Amino acid sequence: MKFNYYMPTKILFGPGKLNDLAGENLPGKKALIVISAGTSMKKYGYLNRLEGILKKKEIEYVIFDKILPNPVKSHIMEGAELARKENCDFVFGLGGGSSIDSAKSIAVMAKNPGDYWDYISGGSGKGMPLENGALPIIAITTTAGTGTEADPWTVITKEETNEKIGFGCADTFPTLSVVDPELMVTVPKHLTAYQGFDALFHATEGYIANIATPISDAYALKSIELIAKYLPICVKDGENIKARTQVALANTLSGFVESISSCTSEHSMEHALSAYYSELPHGAGLIMLSESYYTYFASKVSDRFKVMAKAMGVDVANLSEDERPMAFVKALIRLQEECGVNNLKMSDYGIKREMIPTFAENAHNTMGGLFDVDPYTLTFEDTIEIMTNAYK
Amino acid sequence: MKFNYYMPTKILFGPGKLNDLAGENLPGKKALIVISAGTSMKKYGYLNRLEGILKKKEIEYVIFDKILPNPVKSHIMEGAELARKENCDFVFGLGGGSSIDSAKSIAVMAKNPGDYWDYISGGSGKGMPLENGALPIIAITTTAGTGTEADPWTVITKEETNEKIGFGCADTFPTLSVVDPELMVTVPKHLTAYQGFDALFHATEGYIANIATPISDAYALKSIELIAKYLPICVKDGENIKARTQVALANTLSGFVESISSCTSEHSMEHALSAYYSELPHGAGLIMLSESYYTYFASKVSDRFKVMAKAMGVDVANLSEDERPMAFVKALIRLQEECGVNNLKMSDYGIKREMIPTFAENAHNTMGGLFDVDPYTLTFEDTIEIMTNAYK
Ligand SMILES: [Fe+2]
Ligand SMILES: [Fe+2]
Repeated sequence: MKFNYYMPTKILFGPGKLNDLAGENLPGKKALIVISAGTSMKKYGYLNRLEGILKKKEIEYVIFDKILPNPVKSHIMEGAELARKENCDFVFGLGGGSSIDSAKSIAVMAKNPGDYWDYISGGSGKGMPLENGALPIIAITTTAGTGTEADPWTVITKEETNEKIGFGCADTFPTLSVVDPELMVTVPKHLTAYQGFDALFHATEGYIANIATPISDAYALKSIELIAKYLPICVKDGENIKARTQVALANTLSGFVESISSCTSEHSMEHALSAYYSELPHGAGLIMLSESYYTYFASKVSDRFKVMAKAMGVDVANLSEDERPMAFVKALIRLQEECGVNNLKMSDYGIKREMIPTFAENAHNTMGGLFDVDPYTLTFEDTIEIMTNAYK
Repeated sequence: MKFNYYMPTKILFGPGKLNDLAGENLPGKKALIVISAGTSMKKYGYLNRLEGILKKKEIEYVIFDKILPNPVKSHIMEGAELARKENCDFVFGLGGGSSIDSAKSIAVMAKNPGDYWDYISGGSGKGMPLENGALPIIAITTTAGTGTEADPWTVITKEETNEKIGFGCADTFPTLSVVDPELMVTVPKHLTAYQGFDALFHATEGYIANIATPISDAYALKSIELIAKYLPICVKDGENIKARTQVALANTLSGFVESISSCTSEHSMEHALSAYYSELPHGAGLIMLSESYYTYFASKVSDRFKVMAKAMGVDVANLSEDERPMAFVKALIRLQEECGVNNLKMSDYGIKREMIPTFAENAHNTMGGLFDVDPYTLTFEDTIEIMTNAYK
């Protein structure tokens, strides 16, 4: 048993915690605030509250409000240019995973020369080392999905080549993150479900990954337990702050899992789908793949699946030994039913069955590293088989 | 549910991990290496191995080898003077908790003026803020006890006034810690037991503390479970690297608990004992107090005690509701029997019963803050009662 542990982000967690930002030492004098191109940060007053805190602390700021749900490289370069021009010395990501991920990547490009893809490993990326680190990053998350507030990862799409690739290093952990479930009550039902399943899969993938550790296991099982219990409540009653808080906690724990264990190839496959079909929400893509993906692995690492079934609330002791691993998959489907996301179809997003070999190639090419941490090594054909079985 | 999470230390964990230090970026060019006045760091070759790594990395170093089992303020001031004179820009603590705690306090005084007690809160400390932070600290722990490699705390005694007070802030988290169970196989039986119980009590106190969080709970329960299972094996067979690894993990998890939850008044009471009787090992003092202490609280927070009993391996479902909280205390005594530390007596260390009011006053005076996080507020008389019941 050997591992490294590193999770340096300070996290302010709980209902109302955004207000506590006022009492924190912030790591600079002028901030770039990165938000989405949508209206919700303004409409719900979240941007206003952040601006109020910064004004009180006499910290200047500039707003960059162009981020798309599937964030793209051109906006990273544009945001970094703005940060440099305005002499910003730290970056806020305010919103969902796309805004926070973009803030991370902008923080990188504000301090390093060339093109963002110069630093990406995989696909057409050049895999160059970051010479200059990154500006300090503060994440204020308004969703419970990606876990990005508690991990170093940022996922950006290079549109020209349909490459959607994760990047992260010690410099891209947020310095400070605010996880305030009160900011999450406005997330609509379907996105609540997609994001909650994204968080669930960060935990389940990190739990079956061959680099899982006892610490990531503890986080992962707690996250799985909380999502199974509280996500259906959040979907039914978005205003339920107790359930929102538990799912927010699960999501942060899943971020820890991603930081010290890893996602597996399920994420590579999904990134391939949403790189080509940018309308497909990441969580929805994962849900579409999940029954096939976990069915494939259930027999390969049956012990881990038994424990995950138990964490989902299944009374595994009353099942025969044979039934236990697949009990996790059954519980997963039941949870999808409870959250109203059991009938998602790739074909509904215009995804063509004939594209599957292209997706599989893209998955291995751009995010091949995650296949290395799978608990059983998938061939290219295995990947096609899993994706084909997932196609509806 | 509101909390802050901050645990910035990078941890290299596992058998053989000391070697990985060679691959890390170290935070300076000249180190002060803080070790104990004993011989074991030299005898077992641990100091030699660290020196070898530093030489290869062309990092200069100076050795300060005066630390006592209960480290004292005068050595902190002397070590800090040496660090300044030699222009050391970072500090290693190599050894048990006393060496690592001393390294932290020396790192503070190497950068701040005046006397160490100027920065201490409680007792005769002046509670001044640290203006200049601290030198970066690297911890290499050769014991599984204090959890100091994974928390900001350092406990130093001011001999003149019999004050043994903890101190810590964001600057006193180690930058990097090595937890290599291979360095722990040489710890003798009785110290293995004392240190293991210290780690256990960091978990149990952090679990019953009124500022416990779901994250500290997850760590604490895992730590309790691992210590109950593996500490008796370590005591019986110190060479058992698998058991040493599990107890080392438990200890690191307990450090996390101390970082994000807190110790409670059991530690205040023990510090009073060992402030006056410096021969008394910290873990032994805690063991002497523990039956009385936990019996007192069992009825106050019975739900938490039930869960701790379960973590200790007790089949609580088969007990009546009434028996469950005290089942934890019974399991604690059984574990002490298994580890051969159930007959420790204060009187064997020369501690006088008449001193109890003095101890109680010292505990409230010097470490009163920990009484504030108890799950039930103890009066001065309650403290005397608990300590009197513990006296043998
Ligand atoms: Fe994801
Ligand atoms: Fe302790």
